[in-house]
Amino acid sequence: TIDAERLWDSLMETARIGGTPDGGIARLTLSDDDRRVRDWLRAQCDALGLTMTVDEVGNMFATRPGAREGLPAIAMGSHLDTQPTGGKFDGVLGVLAGLEVLRTLDAAGYRTEAPLMLVNWTNEEGSRFSPAMLGSGIWAGVYDRNYGDARADVSGDTFGASLDRIGYRGEAKAGAIRFGAMFELHIEQGPILEAEGIEVGVVQGIQGMRWFELTLTGTAAHTGSTPMHMRRNALLGMARVIEGIDRIAKAHPDAVGTIGFLEISPNSHNVIPGEVRATIDLRHPSDVVLDQMQAQVDELVRNAAEAVGLTHRLEQISRTAPVVFDPECIASVRAGAKAAGYSTRDIISGAGHDAAHAAAVAPTTMIFVPCAGGLSHNPAESTLPGECAAGAQVLLEAVLDYDRR
Amino acid sequence: TIDAERLWDSLMETARIGGTPDGGIARLTLSDDDRRVRDWLRAQCDALGLTMTVDEVGNMFATRPGAREGLPAIAMGSHLDTQPTGGKFDGVLGVLAGLEVLRTLDAAGYRTEAPLMLVNWTNEEGSRFSPAMLGSGIWAGVYDRNYGDARADVSGDTFGASLDRIGYRGEAKAGAIRFGAMFELHIEQGPILEAEGIEVGVVQGIQGMRWFELTLTGTAAHTGSTPMHMRRNALLGMARVIEGIDRIAKAHPDAVGTIGFLEISPNSHNVIPGEVRATIDLRHPSDVVLDQMQAQVDELVRNAAEAVGLTHRLEQISRTAPVVFDPECIASVRAGAKAAGYSTRDIISGAGHDAAHAAAVAPTTMIFVPCAGGLSHNPAESTLPGECAAGAQVLLEAVLDYDRR
Ligand SMILES: NC(=O)NCCC(=O)O
Ligand SMILES: NC(=O)NCCC(=O)O
Repeated sequence: TIDAERLWDSLMETARIGGTPDGGIARLTLSDDDRRVRDWLRAQCDALGLTMTVDEVGNMFATRPGAREGLPAIAMGSHLDTQPTGGKFDGVLGVLAGLEVLRTLDAAGYRTEAPLMLVNWTNEEGSRFSPAMLGSGIWAGVYDRNYGDARADVSGDTFGASLDRIGYRGEAKAGAIRFGAMFELHIEQGPILEAEGIEVGVVQGIQGMRWFELTLTGTAAHTGSTPMHMRRNALLGMARVIEGIDRIAKAHPDAVGTIGFLEISPNSHNVIPGEVRATIDLRHPSDVVLDQMQAQVDELVRNAAEAVGLTHRLEQISRTAPVVFDPECIASVRAGAKAAGYSTRDIISGAGHDAAHAAAVAPTTMIFVPCAGGLSHNPAESTLPGECAAGAQVLLEAVLDYDRR
Repeated sequence: TIDAERLWDSLMETARIGGTPDGGIARLTLSDDDRRVRDWLRAQCDALGLTMTVDEVGNMFATRPGAREGLPAIAMGSHLDTQPTGGKFDGVLGVLAGLEVLRTLDAAGYRTEAPLMLVNWTNEEGSRFSPAMLGSGIWAGVYDRNYGDARADVSGDTFGASLDRIGYRGEAKAGAIRFGAMFELHIEQGPILEAEGIEVGVVQGIQGMRWFELTLTGTAAHTGSTPMHMRRNALLGMARVIEGIDRIAKAHPDAVGTIGFLEISPNSHNVIPGEVRATIDLRHPSDVVLDQMQAQVDELVRNAAEAVGLTHRLEQISRTAPVVFDPECIASVRAGAKAAGYSTRDIISGAGHDAAHAAAVAPTTMIFVPCAGGLSHNPAESTLPGECAAGAQVLLEAVLDYDRR
């Protein structure tokens, strides 16, 4: 049995690294706080005698040997980076629960057949450097390392330079370190488990997700002396796109569509915006529906730009196909939850996860626990100590079940 | 006759202070570059033997004595700060043309009856610290000094601290230094003079201008796992307000209405915006129409917030009534343009100017020269050397005409 208090203490201890006054965490990937929490994790792994390897994009892999020679590792983990308005559980829970599993086995003197591995993926959130799940994406071969290194944040700092700066560029090639299976515990980030009073979500897969960068260009001009009919207002065009994305998403059951990020130039009170850049985020469990939505967005953008006299550039920056998780891994989660006595429900993830990329390389699944109001990417994100412990216990049982098969 | 080449050289020399690669100037008020251009101006005034006084909000006044005792000064001037995407003429021309007038009189050994005064107003643009025309506004008693000092830019730096930092907080109380009349030369910032092939605009007044700060608050949440019907997307509400402001302005002949500035929180690719702040800029030559527009904006904001489930805060941050300039000053401009042989046209200013606040205290008017395409607040802002010289010549003649009356 895992130690619920030790797990909670670790959660609260790391929550201070990048902690914000409103109870959240702002621990952007490859920031100084990210370095601090990585140093902390490394120290905990050292204390357990694990072997730590860091790859060339900063993904961290800590291995505990198994009893039998030649078996691939069973991995657990998630990510320690957060959103600028992040909470204390998104990502962190999956890493610290994996650590708790290893601590529990250590204390019990239990040795698995296969090696166990704890993973911390770089830049899952995609908030500072888009796209999201970049570390696991490069590891899985979806993006190459140079693409990743060149991604820039709003201040122009690149992923590569920031990784070098915090000293977490490892020697291992991305993808050189592999495992035989992967279990990721995560908060649901949606409202279903809480609403139905279910303790554990048995995750069947992840909806597909496409990100686009849209730039609308008009003419910066004076707000006072430029008559309405002479304007080429890039923000007016973008307002129509924001409204249109919302309408398109609502027209497809189970779809979501959002613009969460805008960069306005020059963003001055008395200048008509000359250029506006946005990220468009479209998601649905079916690629067919995503194709339809994408075509509608194309048309929307063309119409909005034309009506306002703007030029536009619309580029896809990431595309994750809908993911179906491995039946064997799912069976182990189901068995683990049963052994631990928790209520379960099958569920599809609305959020993207590193497990999506892992699933393309090795048998993978996820375990969800509830979060209050389905809220995440918000400092008020809340999962109770008992709920965290339930997730960690099911993770332990699932890994042991998988190891026994 | 003013020296056209000397004027142009001064324009090009100061354009290097905060100059941008695209040919514009980004010389935000109270920045290091603002300090540099102020130091430059002070040195030029010293060379002419003028007496420089700086008031407590950084407004600069350089005086050249008149021949007769006891007469109030005739002022010329404008501002040296620019937009982040500013051009080489907006504001700068009015100050440097005033300087050119003083240099010309000096070279000619001509002494006016009244003293002459050259003025550089602080924070005309209002881009870094809203509202615009803050220095002249405090000088005129429209805002008090504490209000000004507390205005903050996006990084949280205040007007007061920034003024102290560049060392331009003078001893004189704001408003203690007065003058008997004021002439401000400026580029039109609109398309009319160019379209009609007119060389000089005889400015009759300035349209009224009201600025509001709008904050819409919803809930930051995950873009992937938050179903459309559970969202409170602050940016969706703001998109409707942007569209509505455009519609309201277009419904009133001669009105303009714009949102040029947005601050989005958290502004992350995969977070539904929880809060968005905007500046709304409404203008019209009639206060009655502005009242109507304001009422419509009130209703627009209430409806947009309610439809999306947001709370809102709408605050007026500045209000400048429509201004009618002084007939005597206008007559001097007309006489000056005639003496110099330029074509003229009466015109109303679409942009706000320090002359609006000056007009509440002393007889005031403005002189406009054309700018290519009516473009300003844009690096491509362009007024030809001959057009600048025409403006400066009319300024000289108008001041001498007014002095003779
Ligand atoms: N789980 C999570 O928040 N991932 C970030 C990537 C995304 O789904 O936007
Ligand atoms: N002239 C000028 O651009 N003034 C700035 C204030 C305004 O927005 O009108």
